[in-house]
Amino acid sequence: MTVAPIRRTEPNTDTGRGARQAIRDGLHRGPTAGLAPGYVQGNLAVLPRALAPDFMRFCQRNPKPCPLIGVSAPGDWRIPELGEDLDIRTDIPRYRVWKNGELVAEPDDLNGVWRDDLVSFVLGCSFSFEEALMAEGIELRHIARGCNVPMYRTSIATAAADPFHGPMVVSMRPMTPANAIRAVQITTRFPAVHGAPVHIGKPELIGIADVMKPDYGDAVEVRDDELPVFWACGVTPQSVIATVKPEFCITHYPGSMLVTDRRNTEFAVL
Amino acid sequence: MTVAPIRRTEPNTDTGRGARQAIRDGLHRGPTAGLAPGYVQGNLAVLPRALAPDFMRFCQRNPKPCPLIGVSAPGDWRIPELGEDLDIRTDIPRYRVWKNGELVAEPDDLNGVWRDDLVSFVLGCSFSFEEALMAEGIELRHIARGCNVPMYRTSIATAAADPFHGPMVVSMRPMTPANAIRAVQITTRFPAVHGAPVHIGKPELIGIADVMKPDYGDAVEVRDDELPVFWACGVTPQSVIATVKPEFCITHYPGSMLVTDRRNTEFAVL
Repeated sequence: MTVAPIRRTEPNTDTGRGARQAIRDGLHRGPTAGLAPGYVQGNLAVLPRALAPDFMRFCQRNPKPCPLIGVSAPGDWRIPELGEDLDIRTDIPRYRVWKNGELVAEPDDLNGVWRDDLVSFVLGCSFSFEEALMAEGIELRHIARGCNVPMYRTSIATAAADPFHGPMVVSMRPMTPANAIRAVQITTRFPAVHGAPVHIGKPELIGIADVMKPDYGDAVEVRDDELPVFWACGVTPQSVIATVKPEFCITHYPGSMLVTDRRNTEFAVL
Repeated sequence: MTVAPIRRTEPNTDTGRGARQAIRDGLHRGPTAGLAPGYVQGNLAVLPRALAPDFMRFCQRNPKPCPLIGVSAPGDWRIPELGEDLDIRTDIPRYRVWKNGELVAEPDDLNGVWRDDLVSFVLGCSFSFEEALMAEGIELRHIARGCNVPMYRTSIATAAADPFHGPMVVSMRPMTPANAIRAVQITTRFPAVHGAPVHIGKPELIGIADVMKPDYGDAVEVRDDELPVFWACGVTPQSVIATVKPEFCITHYPGSMLVTDRRNTEFAVL
């Protein structure tokens, strides 16, 4: 009797679909940065149906920090416009489950916690515009250093959609003034993935006391010939949800994003 | 005994607020084209709360025909981000009230029909990009002729968000090829008010048998040296709502739009 050899082919994570399959099969764990170059990755927020209209209205009012790129029907784990085969319960490497604002679990899939009243929201993320910046030769320090981008809670209020409210969270990338100007032009082309910066220079004007002490992510140096450039950040909705403390909520684990079939270039308006 | 003379000051409709006040006071009836130059006007759709999340998802999936610029809280007649004093029940010259897909009334205000479960959606309209086109010297034939823009149901399907589905409605403006190219560039700057055209030339490719027979509005000539240029149209959601036949729905009367305090230029991304 012969036993068929166990063959495990290396997963092809060059496409959104391939990356999701690898994640679904348990062959990829951890951060999704670098997977499926050119494909849009998204932040995830899953809320009970009762809160969904208010959260959608919050996103509509705050398109820079909360650029909605996909919304599921209630109870449906599919979002076909982001990927035909996409299953929101299994296609992210790691999740965070929250009850009444408290983190209660960080599972690899949602099979044990899914409910029929859940609505999934996928929000664009900065990976898309960072790719465009790097393609134009603008070096991003946190990527060069291999760390997370620094993020800050600011004094900029989001536009409330009761019960959702709270401060905008921003990410920061240090740049020379010439690169900062070019970066404004480039990211303006991508309104669906945070768009143009919300602030340049003078961090104290938006309530940031010390750029070397971010609230999330890692500090990176801002050199004397550079300005800190701030973009609205997809962590904003997580921060707002934490303020509202919904009875139940799911988000992605930081850095473990949803990889989609949409291409970054599709989101350029020019 | 002296009687104070009745003084009626001419309403100042140069601003969004002034135009709304004049409409609210019954001093302006009929089309809003030409009121408050430079200010955004919007299409209105009002639906019961039960249908609101699906309609919002429909708009999210179809940003070109359904560019959401404001959404109310359920039962709330205010949309402060579009105007501090705005009252959706009184600030449009004329409304259409629909029951189960049938037009049942065309009132001057909504005081007699308002319900506590209604959600108001305001969608950007082509007046905003038409102003930008004319500012660049591009003549618009329907405006030169003083008629309505021609509109057509097409074979282009919208992205469904159950129960909302149906064909995209487009508006058409004839242009020389050079102006068509410039118009693509100009309207690309305004993704929040329909954005770039969805089609140029060859109307048969999008299911339009005869450009001289529009489904809505008035026919305008397309000269031999011109191409018909088609934009996604804010009539699409009304057409889709008519297909779905919700038990209750309110829209604006065609041409009688909501005048807001937002400026057209705010919606330019470049």
